[in-house]
Amino acid sequence: SGSGSGWARAVRGLLLDVSGVLYDSGADGGVPIAGSAEAVRRIKAAGLKLQLCTNETQATRENFVRKLRAMGFDISVAEVTAPAPAACRLLKERGLRPHLLVHDGLIPEFAEIDKTNPNCVVLGDAAENFTYANLNEAFRFLIGMEKPVLISLGKGRYYKETDGLKLDVGAYMKALEYACDIQAEVVGKPAKRFFESALAELGVPPEQAVMIGDDIVSDVGGAQQCGMRALQVRTGKYRPSDENHPEVKPDAYVNNLAEAVDIILQQL
Amino acid sequence: SGSGSGWARAVRGLLLDVSGVLYDSGADGGVPIAGSAEAVRRIKAAGLKLQLCTNETQATRENFVRKLRAMGFDISVAEVTAPAPAACRLLKERGLRPHLLVHDGLIPEFAEIDKTNPNCVVLGDAAENFTYANLNEAFRFLIGMEKPVLISLGKGRYYKETDGLKLDVGAYMKALEYACDIQAEVVGKPAKRFFESALAELGVPPEQAVMIGDDIVSDVGGAQQCGMRALQVRTGKYRPSDENHPEVKPDAYVNNLAEAVDIILQQL
Repeated sequence: SGSGSGWARAVRGLLLDVSGVLYDSGADGGVPIAGSAEAVRRIKAAGLKLQLCTNETQATRENFVRKLRAMGFDISVAEVTAPAPAACRLLKERGLRPHLLVHDGLIPEFAEIDKTNPNCVVLGDAAENFTYANLNEAFRFLIGMEKPVLISLGKGRYYKETDGLKLDVGAYMKALEYACDIQAEVVGKPAKRFFESALAELGVPPEQAVMIGDDIVSDVGGAQQCGMRALQVRTGKYRPSDENHPEVKPDAYVNNLAEAVDIILQQL
Repeated sequence: SGSGSGWARAVRGLLLDVSGVLYDSGADGGVPIAGSAEAVRRIKAAGLKLQLCTNETQATRENFVRKLRAMGFDISVAEVTAPAPAACRLLKERGLRPHLLVHDGLIPEFAEIDKTNPNCVVLGDAAENFTYANLNEAFRFLIGMEKPVLISLGKGRYYKETDGLKLDVGAYMKALEYACDIQAEVVGKPAKRFFESALAELGVPPEQAVMIGDDIVSDVGGAQQCGMRALQVRTGKYRPSDENHPEVKPDAYVNNLAEAVDIILQQL
């Protein structure tokens, strides 16, 4: 990778971003990135722990895993850390009853949550559900609260689909923040608490774990703030200008997941 | 008004906000505020200059004036300073060709502007036109520009209609700003340049003009930054908490436009 392999020592577990690392988003759900399915198998065969750490909020984990398995990835539901289950834990802890502005595909994740008489709003990447009426409705719930609570499942700016770029949940979060003069609570990457949950599920301390992602801020910056090493892959949303990022410097760049796994396994 | 009338000396012209000062928004366009139509007549009969200074962007000035006249206000199109004509001047000056994300009712204001091959986005209170598809389209125009230019017709947070609160243009401006990592250029109150245009059309220097509005920040704060006196009326979106605003202090509070005109005319 051109930056040596000292970063690859004493690794016992890997956190992997999914979109842009395992597959590229596209028509009918996506296309696997060459070598990634094999890399997942090699990680497991070598006895390393593995956990997917994703901001995916358009589907339940069950459906998300079904899609990954259909693309050839040996992944189970327990190996996925995603924002919706983390949000459900937070809602229960604090006795919050959400009004949901999320994708239809995500709604089953909140099946066991009391949603009567809402005292907070949970915002996900609602996609086609981001209508003028739905945004006004979410806004009215918030502005009607004595102390508005907005929980946002991620804060991405935009993402790419086959039919073009789409505004991500972060843009709508900013609209509601401004209208209500509040700050949202972000569940998902790059929130420290979210990485800590993923590490707990991985079962490995931060100094023995490596995060691998395509997003220089959410994946690399977020993981490093938790004391983990972090690599940026040159796949997915990676752009050469990321290598001059003013604030975040990965422990290494790798061309893709397969190359990262090659280097890590050589150091075992 | 409880704060003396020293502020009312040597007035030669008035800038008036419209919604919340002349009328309250409501079903079928609005309801005049008691005494306001008579107050406009008395201003003119006394020989004072008058200019409306509004962030209205859901209708052309022609249709806006038609609505005001139907409510009994003696107002002509030349007496209205609004964001869309100001934006058209700016577009022409800078050779900008806009992609418009505005209310259908505003589109005729841009009839003479070249809109081919857009090199900027103009954002107004598009209301029902704030669809997921239209927001993504505006975003793609911006992110595709070498240096994205977003011109926003105001930056209001929200407003009230008979069927409830609605997100205003400022919320959508923030969404696009965040997604593109840019700052919008705001045309309309509280932009200094917009007040300067209104003063030029009023034909009175700032020290001889008084702004009267219901918005403590956009109307009062904006006008004061141009060296004008500014009053807040206790109608429209006024709330008692405005009187403790941390940054803006009006030259006086008045119960309504009629009371302001009473005091000003007594000092002539």
